[in-house]
Amino acid sequence: MKAEPVLDIALRLEVDDLYARYIACLDQRRYEDWPDFFTDECVYKLQPRENFERGLPLCTLSFESKGMLRDRVYSVTQTLFHQPYYQRHIVSGLQVVTVADGVISTEANYLVVRTKKNELSELFNCGRYFDKVVRENGQLKFAAKVAVFDSELIPNSLIYPV
Amino acid sequence: MKAEPVLDIALRLEVDDLYARYIACLDQRRYEDWPDFFTDECVYKLQPRENFERGLPLCTLSFESKGMLRDRVYSVTQTLFHQPYYQRHIVSGLQVVTVADGVISTEANYLVVRTKKNELSELFNCGRYFDKVVRENGQLKFAAKVAVFDSELIPNSLIYPV
Amino acid sequence: MKAEPVLDIALRLEVDDLYARYIACLDQRRYEDWPDFFTDECVYKLQPRENFERGLPLCTLSFESKGMLRDRVYSVTQTLFHQPYYQRHIVSGLQVVTVADGVISTEANYLVVRTKKNELSELFNCGRYFDKVVRENGQLKFAAKVAVFDSELIPNSLIYPV
Repeated sequence: MKAEPVLDIALRLEVDDLYARYIACLDQRRYEDWPDFFTDECVYKLQPRENFERGLPLCTLSFESKGMLRDRVYSVTQTLFHQPYYQRHIVSGLQVVTVADGVISTEANYLVVRTKKNELSELFNCGRYFDKVVRENGQLKFAAKVAVFDSELIPNSLIYPV
Repeated sequence: MKAEPVLDIALRLEVDDLYARYIACLDQRRYEDWPDFFTDECVYKLQPRENFERGLPLCTLSFESKGMLRDRVYSVTQTLFHQPYYQRHIVSGLQVVTVADGVISTEANYLVVRTKKNELSELFNCGRYFDKVVRENGQLKFAAKVAVFDSELIPNSLIYPV
Repeated sequence: MKAEPVLDIALRLEVDDLYARYIACLDQRRYEDWPDFFTDECVYKLQPRENFERGLPLCTLSFESKGMLRDRVYSVTQTLFHQPYYQRHIVSGLQVVTVADGVISTEANYLVVRTKKNELSELFNCGRYFDKVVRENGQLKFAAKVAVFDSELIPNSLIYPV
């Protein structure tokens, strides 16, 4: 049985690797490296599904440049008073939806498990990424990452990036 | 280090893409498109693991044609009285077990997270797909999908396809 | 858009297949086959994240040869008094970190859902694999598998391999 390739295989695997490195960075708490997954001009949004599907603009987090991402990292690691927790990302069903004009539109389901000190691991946040990926100096970067999450309830606060 | 390919790489990725599109369709509630992932003659079963492993026939859901899948979509979207919920699928460990006589036997672990309005996301159903995939008019379709789930308990009812 | 391959594609997919077969073996309770995923001289550790990150040696489980893995299987299936449960593994974000001197260093996030008889499925254990993979008689095997889990709490006991 012959396959009908819809995409350059090496590019598909390179996108896969981008997501693997992204979640490894977050889950290993290397937050200082997180902004470098994005282009200088970029969009990062964390938005409830209900708003996303109705076209309502309100987001839980919304950043519009790598500088704003660096500010967030600073506040998360230096100033925000919070109880630390581990995150563990699971990404599944990654799709390259379109490739046009140098922009790769990707989508994937994600799930984040949270573990607080002396507590059991628990389901924290899940939803779908709607992302734009571009190549910059040879490397794939997110020009946009929109994480649309299913539950309008968030247990305690959402501190770290998703 | 050289690899020992067990399968045509493009076909492997095409199967991967089939699952990604399948779960995207369900999780985005495009239920009308769900039957088109199947061949006209098809099998769709949702079965408790205990019955599956003992060879007992009883299933929670069992359909035998695309027409029956369309009936299910109609009842789910039009007639079944139920509290709506979001589903979020995670698929992992996809295996192409055999390719013979135009039939690709595939297996994969799956997990479905459910989110009800104004509630936290929760683990809803998990198990393993035992599927048969064939090519029809150039596109991969499920000739059979058997979702074998681990827990004989289902919180409330299982309304939407898995 | 051209990809910049970082790895032999066939090898990447072969590693992916190794993990898929590994979790299928465990989740289908074929514990007798589990040691054969390892080389004769091997390391298997299950370690809390806090110890791993601080360089502390204490592990929940620690085995140093295929013989010790076989002993564990014997005790799990024959002598350990425990309430049986199903496991369901989800693996995500698999990375081939380095390939050097015939050793493939891999990492991946994992999550295990547990289902006890007459109970709902529940999140049981999650963390990250830090593994060494080698080729032996043509087949990929684990020379080392270190499962580092996020929560220092384990609900009841951890009986089966992860």
